[in-house]
Amino acid sequence: MLKVNAFQAEQADALGAAERSMIERRQRLLGPAYQLFYDHPLHLVRGAGTWLYDREGAAYLDLYNNVASIGHSHPRVVEALTRQAAQLNTHTRYLHEGVLDYAEKLLATMPPELGNVMFTCTGSEANDLALRIARDYSGGTGVIVTRYAYHGMTASIAELSPSVGDYVPLGRDIRVVDAPLHDPADPARVGRLFAAQVRAALADMRRHGIKPAALLVDTLFTSDGVFADPPGFLREAVEAVRAAGGLFIADEVQPGFARTGTHMWGFQRHGLVPDLVTLGKPMGNGHPLAGLTVRPEILARFGRNASYFNTFGGNPVSAAVGLAVLQVIEEEGLQENARHVGAQLKEGLEGLAQGHACLGQVRGAGLFLGVDVLDAQGAADGASARRIVNLLRDEHMLIGVAGAQNNVLKIRPQLCFSAENVEQFLAALERVLGRR
Amino acid sequence: MLKVNAFQAEQADALGAAERSMIERRQRLLGPAYQLFYDHPLHLVRGAGTWLYDREGAAYLDLYNNVASIGHSHPRVVEALTRQAAQLNTHTRYLHEGVLDYAEKLLATMPPELGNVMFTCTGSEANDLALRIARDYSGGTGVIVTRYAYHGMTASIAELSPSVGDYVPLGRDIRVVDAPLHDPADPARVGRLFAAQVRAALADMRRHGIKPAALLVDTLFTSDGVFADPPGFLREAVEAVRAAGGLFIADEVQPGFARTGTHMWGFQRHGLVPDLVTLGKPMGNGHPLAGLTVRPEILARFGRNASYFNTFGGNPVSAAVGLAVLQVIEEEGLQENARHVGAQLKEGLEGLAQGHACLGQVRGAGLFLGVDVLDAQGAADGASARRIVNLLRDEHMLIGVAGAQNNVLKIRPQLCFSAENVEQFLAALERVLGRR
Repeated sequence: MLKVNAFQAEQADALGAAERSMIERRQRLLGPAYQLFYDHPLHLVRGAGTWLYDREGAAYLDLYNNVASIGHSHPRVVEALTRQAAQLNTHTRYLHEGVLDYAEKLLATMPPELGNVMFTCTGSEANDLALRIARDYSGGTGVIVTRYAYHGMTASIAELSPSVGDYVPLGRDIRVVDAPLHDPADPARVGRLFAAQVRAALADMRRHGIKPAALLVDTLFTSDGVFADPPGFLREAVEAVRAAGGLFIADEVQPGFARTGTHMWGFQRHGLVPDLVTLGKPMGNGHPLAGLTVRPEILARFGRNASYFNTFGGNPVSAAVGLAVLQVIEEEGLQENARHVGAQLKEGLEGLAQGHACLGQVRGAGLFLGVDVLDAQGAADGASARRIVNLLRDEHMLIGVAGAQNNVLKIRPQLCFSAENVEQFLAALERVLGRR
Repeated sequence: MLKVNAFQAEQADALGAAERSMIERRQRLLGPAYQLFYDHPLHLVRGAGTWLYDREGAAYLDLYNNVASIGHSHPRVVEALTRQAAQLNTHTRYLHEGVLDYAEKLLATMPPELGNVMFTCTGSEANDLALRIARDYSGGTGVIVTRYAYHGMTASIAELSPSVGDYVPLGRDIRVVDAPLHDPADPARVGRLFAAQVRAALADMRRHGIKPAALLVDTLFTSDGVFADPPGFLREAVEAVRAAGGLFIADEVQPGFARTGTHMWGFQRHGLVPDLVTLGKPMGNGHPLAGLTVRPEILARFGRNASYFNTFGGNPVSAAVGLAVLQVIEEEGLQENARHVGAQLKEGLEGLAQGHACLGQVRGAGLFLGVDVLDAQGAADGASARRIVNLLRDEHMLIGVAGAQNNVLKIRPQLCFSAENVEQFLAALERVLGRR
C-alpha cells in the first residue's frame, strides 16, 4: 500500500524549478524512506472544509484525507487546541477533568460492555497496546489478519500488516486469511467463507502448538480493497475465534468516527461487540491522538501486573481536541451526512460504472467507497487505477488506491462532503474516463 | 520506574470529596493500568513558565516535567500551534516547507554525520523505528541496554526496557549491563568498567550465536539513577560495539534539547557521534512530537527496501511547534541557563548533602540532577526518597525518583528555571529534611 503512487524523482516531468528543489531538499533531509503522492507531487499550503489549496491558491477537492475528517482546519478544533494549550499541557499522572470528560463522551458512543479507554498518540501504538493486552489476557500469541491488512508500523504491528510488503516478514505466529470478498449473487456466502478460513487458520495454529490471541481486522477491510457487505458477515468468524480462546479486536482507525454513515463504529454494522476496539486517524482531526477501548474484565488482568504510561497520550490538549471532534460530529450531523451523501456518491459511481467497462464493483459504506478498476479482460488493473488517480489529481480531485493489486479506487472524503462536491467529483471522473 | 509514587485509592488520606470522586471516575473510565503521582494526587489546571497551579490557584514549582521543557504553555509554542493548525494540517505525502525548515534547523544542531531525520509522535515510536533500522543495517538482533533502562512502551521496546518490570520479559537477544557507576575517586575506571561489561555481553551474544545490532543507552542514564561523569566514559564501550558490527543508538529523549547545559545533546558530552539518535519528550514542549536522526549511509539500506509513513509524524503543525521550540531555546539562551542555573542547583544540593547524612552523591549535568537517598547505614533508601518527594509536594515543590531502588531524587526542572527558583527549592528541601 505504502509505495503506491510513490513519487520517484527520476520519473518527474512537468515539475517547476521550485518544486524540484523542494523535492531534492526533502530527499537530502528526510532520506529515502519517505514517499510522495502522485507523479506530479502536490505542494499544499492551506485547507478549509473539504478543500485544499496550493501555493498559487488553486483549490483541490479532497476525497482522500480521512484524518481531517470533520473538515480541514475546523475552527472548533483550532479553538479547543489553542485554549487548552495556552492553559495547561501535562500528562495523566496528575488529575485533570479534560481527559475524564473526553473518556466519558467517547465511551458513551460505544456499547456499554466496552467500559474502559486508554490513550496513545498513533493508531500503531493503539494496535501495539491492544495486542499486548490480548496476548496477556488470552495467554496466546497467534493472531489472524487479512491478506492485505495494514495495522501500523511498530515492529510488532508491522509483522502482522502484510500490506507493508515483503521486507517485513510476517511473524511466526501470524496467520493470514483472505478478506471477505463481495458476492452480490450470494451474500450469505461471504461470512460463511470467511469463517471457514478463520477456522482453518485456528486449526493450523493448533497443529503448530500456537495458542490464538486474537482476530484483528479493520471492520471495513479498507486496505484489502473495501469490503462492507452484507452487514453481519463477521459474526461467524468472531464466534469461532472466541470459541478457540481468542479475542476479537476491531481496528476502527479507518471505519470509525461516523464514517460508515449508519453507525459511529464499523463493528456496529456487524451487530458485534468487540473485546478491544482500536482508534486513530480521525480522532483528533489531525492532532496526534489515538487509543483503544476494552472490556474492563479483559483489562483487569493486564492492569494487575502492568502499568501503562504514554507521555503524551491523553494529555489535556489532546483530550480537548478529541472532545471537540466528537461534539462537531454530533452537532453538525456528520454521521447522517456521511450516510446521505455517501449513498449519493455510491449511486453516482455505480452509474458511471454502468457506462465504463473499466470500472467494476462499487463497494463500501457511508463515505468510504472502493471502486474496482479492470482491464478489457475484466482483470484487476493497477496501472489504470494509478493513471485515473493521477489524471484526477490534474483535475484537482484527490483520491488514492487500495487493494493487494492497487486497482481499487479509494474514496474517503471529509464527513462534511456535500451533494455539490459529489457532483463536482463525478463530473471530473467522467471527464477522466472519457479521456482514457 | 512506572509504579513509583503511584497512588492507590486505599492509601488516600486527606483527600477532598471532589478529588475522591474524580479518582473514582478516573478508575472507572481509564481502568487499572493508569497511575497517579503522590500519596495525595495533584489536580492541576494551569501552567506558566516554571509554575503549575491547582484549582484553588495555589502555585507549585515544577522540578519534574521536562516535557514542557521551555516553560509551561510557552506563548511562542501556542502561537505556532494555533497559526499552523488554522492554516493546514496534513502529512508528509504532500510537499510542505514547514517540515523541511524544521528538519534543517534540527539537523544543524547535530554533528554533520547525522544527515537525515525522520519524524514520529512518541519517543517509543522513535526507539522502535531506530531498532528496526539498526537491525536491518547490521543484520543482527542483539541489543545491549542498562539494568534499569527505560526506552519506551511498544511491545518491541518494552522488552528492552528493564525498568518496566518483570511482567514484560526481556527479549531473548537482549543483554543487560550495569549503568556506569559514578566513581569520583577514580573517574577513569568508570568507562573502563562499563566497556568491560559491554565486551562481556558481546562475547555472550557471540557464544549464543546472536549477532549484535546495537548498544542503546540514554546518554545521561537517567532511569538508572543519573550517571553523567566523567564526560567521555562512553567512548570505549561504543568502540567495542562497533568493532563487533553493532551500532550506537543514543537515546536523547531525556538528556536532549539543551538540558545538559554544556551541549544540545547528551552524546556530545562524550565526544561521540552516534549512528542513530532518538528524540522525544521536550521536542514539542508537550505536543506529541518525536523522531530520530541517522547517518544517511545507514538509512540508505532501509530506505531501499522499506518506506516509512507515520500518519501524524512530521505534519505541518508538529513541525511548526518543533521549530518554535528550537527558536526559543536559542533566543532565550536556555542551554546557557541550564548550565548556569544547573551548576547553582547542584552546588546547593551538595551543600545540603554535607549537612544531612541521608543525602549521598549528587550527580548529573545541567538541569538534570540525581541525589542518592541513604539510610543510616549508607544503603539505598527508597522509602525515605518517597517520603521526601511527598513532603516536597506538600511544600508545593514537584520532583520524582529514579534508579533501580527508587532512592534517587530525580530533579529536572524547566530550562527557564531561575536562580530564585533554586533558592526556593533548596529552602523547601532543607525544611523537609529538618522535619524528618
